[in-house]
Amino acid sequence: MLPSKLTRLIQLLSRFPGVGEKTAQRFALYLIQHSDLSDQLGRELTELSASIVVCERCGNIAERALPGPSWCTVCTDPRRHGRLLCIVARVQDLLAIERSGAMRGRYFVLGRLLSPLDGIGPEELPLQQLLKLTEAENVEEVIIATPPSVDGEATALFLARELGRRGLKLSRIASGIPHGGDLEFADQITLGRAIDDRRDLG
Amino acid sequence: MLPSKLTRLIQLLSRFPGVGEKTAQRFALYLIQHSDLSDQLGRELTELSASIVVCERCGNIAERALPGPSWCTVCTDPRRHGRLLCIVARVQDLLAIERSGAMRGRYFVLGRLLSPLDGIGPEELPLQQLLKLTEAENVEEVIIATPPSVDGEATALFLARELGRRGLKLSRIASGIPHGGDLEFADQITLGRAIDDRRDLG
Repeated sequence: MLPSKLTRLIQLLSRFPGVGEKTAQRFALYLIQHSDLSDQLGRELTELSASIVVCERCGNIAERALPGPSWCTVCTDPRRHGRLLCIVARVQDLLAIERSGAMRGRYFVLGRLLSPLDGIGPEELPLQQLLKLTEAENVEEVIIATPPSVDGEATALFLARELGRRGLKLSRIASGIPHGGDLEFADQITLGRAIDDRRDLG
Repeated sequence: MLPSKLTRLIQLLSRFPGVGEKTAQRFALYLIQHSDLSDQLGRELTELSASIVVCERCGNIAERALPGPSWCTVCTDPRRHGRLLCIVARVQDLLAIERSGAMRGRYFVLGRLLSPLDGIGPEELPLQQLLKLTEAENVEEVIIATPPSVDGEATALFLARELGRRGLKLSRIASGIPHGGDLEFADQITLGRAIDDRRDLG
């Protein structure tokens, strides 16, 4: 009984990550009731793919450059260490690391993690692209910054094995109690890691 | 460090109900990585306000009729009982009741509920519009179908007082254990209502 235009809108909105049919319907009805929002959003989205793209080198977001390859601001920054590469799972993770200001090299966004349960195996990872990049840019050191989850660790192990064969210096971001965190409320695995990976103070 | 176009998109997406800054950023990055979705959604939204509007009579969604007033399919359906009116809080609730097939009258969508904590008082409810409608259409019976929440009950009480003065036959949707529900897991208030509002079987 819904107008077909609305059904179509709900279908598109339910493709958003983490959004199901019910939430998509809620969004759609909200958009109908707030036509200023739907108009503005419609304009922005229509122009989006013409102006913002995925960086062809690392997978970060980039403004489209015409003509020539579209690289992001990190990849085009000449002050970045070209021999240091940080591998992250998602663009969000890249942005978070950039906010920390702790990374002076460049990035490579995997886009996905190994996840046998979801049927994502090694062949789904952009390994060839990554290896080509490390060779072409003479990368010497790689920091693997996938999240400390089951999938993130599996991906890190897999990448470490593949990259280790090429004689690259490899490291993994530290896992432990977050700054300001409480030992009392930390889970066992995190606390175990914090002990195992303790730093020498001597 | 985000392109201004992306910041703007995140800002718009964070106006969606229940969506914060982080989720909006996640949606925005997903849209950038899936340009087919952003293009289609952009097209749909650009056309949305020209084709789907809020029904001028009841607040339901309606396809825009040109020329003339835009009424929804329920309001224009001649088989509906014109003297029976069902008051709901949101369009979603109207759609849910329509799916049940239990309502043969027409609707009135409030759009909001009384909520003193959020600063929504009686003057924010479309009471005048509702009273005008009940008079103009000679409504005889009103079913108040606001949800059985604190705000929904407060709104129902307020409307019952205002409409009761006009000599309308009033009722409130039943509250109790849902069909297929388990008494063991029902909360105390629901169970108390189910007992208080029990039906005679004799």
